[in-house]
Amino acid sequence: MVHTLVLIRHGESQWNKENRFCGWVDQPLSETGEGEAKAAGVLLKNEGYEFDLAYTSFLKRAIKTCEIVLEEMDLMWIPVSKDWHLNERMYGALQGLNKADTAAKYGDDQVLIWRRSYDTPPPPAPEDHEFYPGKEAKYDAIPRDQIPRQECLKDTVERVLPYWNSEIAPAIKSGKKLLIAAHGNSLRALVKYLDDISDDAILKVNIPTGVPLMYHLDDNLRPIKMEGSAEPLSGKYLGDQDAIAAAAAAVAAQGKSK
Amino acid sequence: MVHTLVLIRHGESQWNKENRFCGWVDQPLSETGEGEAKAAGVLLKNEGYEFDLAYTSFLKRAIKTCEIVLEEMDLMWIPVSKDWHLNERMYGALQGLNKADTAAKYGDDQVLIWRRSYDTPPPPAPEDHEFYPGKEAKYDAIPRDQIPRQECLKDTVERVLPYWNSEIAPAIKSGKKLLIAAHGNSLRALVKYLDDISDDAILKVNIPTGVPLMYHLDDNLRPIKMEGSAEPLSGKYLGDQDAIAAAAAAVAAQGKSK
Repeated sequence: MVHTLVLIRHGESQWNKENRFCGWVDQPLSETGEGEAKAAGVLLKNEGYEFDLAYTSFLKRAIKTCEIVLEEMDLMWIPVSKDWHLNERMYGALQGLNKADTAAKYGDDQVLIWRRSYDTPPPPAPEDHEFYPGKEAKYDAIPRDQIPRQECLKDTVERVLPYWNSEIAPAIKSGKKLLIAAHGNSLRALVKYLDDISDDAILKVNIPTGVPLMYHLDDNLRPIKMEGSAEPLSGKYLGDQDAIAAAAAAVAAQGKSK
Repeated sequence: MVHTLVLIRHGESQWNKENRFCGWVDQPLSETGEGEAKAAGVLLKNEGYEFDLAYTSFLKRAIKTCEIVLEEMDLMWIPVSKDWHLNERMYGALQGLNKADTAAKYGDDQVLIWRRSYDTPPPPAPEDHEFYPGKEAKYDAIPRDQIPRQECLKDTVERVLPYWNSEIAPAIKSGKKLLIAAHGNSLRALVKYLDDISDDAILKVNIPTGVPLMYHLDDNLRPIKMEGSAEPLSGKYLGDQDAIAAAAAAVAAQGKSK
């Protein structure tokens, strides 16, 4: 049996727009971001996709993207599981800072390392940091020592994969069609695992906002390469391919000082 | 321990606006309805309410109301259980008809019986009826003989109560604070049970759209009468009491031919 899985990175958030490191800070979608989510829902509906179940994070930009997509698809009634394991990478003390300002201060190279190195985390957020997530009621149920103060992509992989294995993979194997609405880095963590992408190669994978990324998986949940796959991914972006390439290039350019 | 439970009937739907019998037909909120839901969310937030969990139906007007309320309260991340047992009363062959036209054709008295009699159901919808719910994919998981073709309020009570007992009541007893976003008649079914209202008296209870109805329940989940309770209910509507009384009167008047 071929399983269809659709991943979608949330639409543009207020802080994507302001070019600030967001991480676990709970920024809403911008108006553009809501429009992206709507367009993704219309596209998925028009191409005949259906879902039995959706997964999203604890962050409103992903939850809202999920809700808008399901509303456009007339699937508001399906169960939506929300879980902090699908949150964005926790950007530590960088959360809230402007990406270009940070690059001007620390240099493009340092910021590229923080943004795209596989295993160098950004500086940690102390407990009294404005955006330390342990202050928020929604993380009360998580043991303190599991709330990250900083994450490199490797850390995000180590957080996302157990949740994939315990919750998501069994749902797919049971035959359910899934939508996962999450974040640039929680989705990079996931596709790195699915496509067995090297620590170096994942650096160059930039997932654009609001574009459905469709995978076909075999019975062992290994990806099946399709025509039109977005190398090195086996998955395929749905929609206008030129516009998608331009959006991915824009994501890659965000960490430059000018 | 005193448990706080908040019920809310969805905001105005397109067919509330067009004065048509809606039942299980999946009509969206009108723009006014979205505004009502937003105002309810702002009110709940300003009055300091919090929820751990929300329940809603399989119908988008209730789901969207729930989502809007949680968005305004900054609680989008809490789990939302959606279940067909909380659907509106199934209005049988009346679904889709204009209430005033139906009253003009069959008489105000007959329509009042269909709308407000406790145990006289409207005419059934045959399987080939435009709005027979068995045609919709979302009810595929329900055994055919459980999909109603018509319901009087008594039938709705008999559908809602097992769900209350098996799912909702245990969640409240476990200490969770709940929001239930549902429908005029699934909520009447619930308050009839909670307040032990007679079959006759429930006829006169009209729950306005988009107004939070707050209950205090004791450890046995029996309601505790509060100052400002909306007789014969022990619950209390939150917000501007004069506006709420006017809205309830408007609901009561909908089934008149002119």
